[in-house]
Amino acid sequence: MCEANAYLIENNEPVLIMESVDTVKPEDDGINIVNIFGEQKFIKAQIDSLSLVDHKIFLKKMSS
Amino acid sequence: MCEANAYLIENNEPVLIMESVDTVKPEDDGINIVNIFGEQKFIKAQIDSLSLVDHKIFLKKMSS
Repeated sequence: MCEANAYLIENNEPVLIMESVDTVKPEDDGINIVNIFGEQKFIKAQIDSLSLVDHKIFLKKMSS
Repeated sequence: MCEANAYLIENNEPVLIMESVDTVKPEDDGINIVNIFGEQKFIKAQIDSLSLVDHKIFLKKMSS
């Protein structure tokens, strides 16, 4: 399985917000993430970067 | 290894643009993708969605 962990960067520090993320879908006002267990979160954030070999998704607060 | 393949959605069809993608970094005017071999592409696109268990990154042309 190649899911990743999602981190929200706050004050330059990554904070784990969801493990085993499967799908990620940016929306106009945030981002939807769903893990392999079907749990879903909507976060007012956008993708900062991905590092898939490290299984990491970095999100950042939306620039408003 | 948990890299993914990157597809650009054109006319509702995903077109493979890079295999074995490791890092993805959205920028103001496009997106940088780098594969596990160190090959880099800059595409005038943004992330449409990720499906990590399927090893797929979907990009779409930037809405200008």
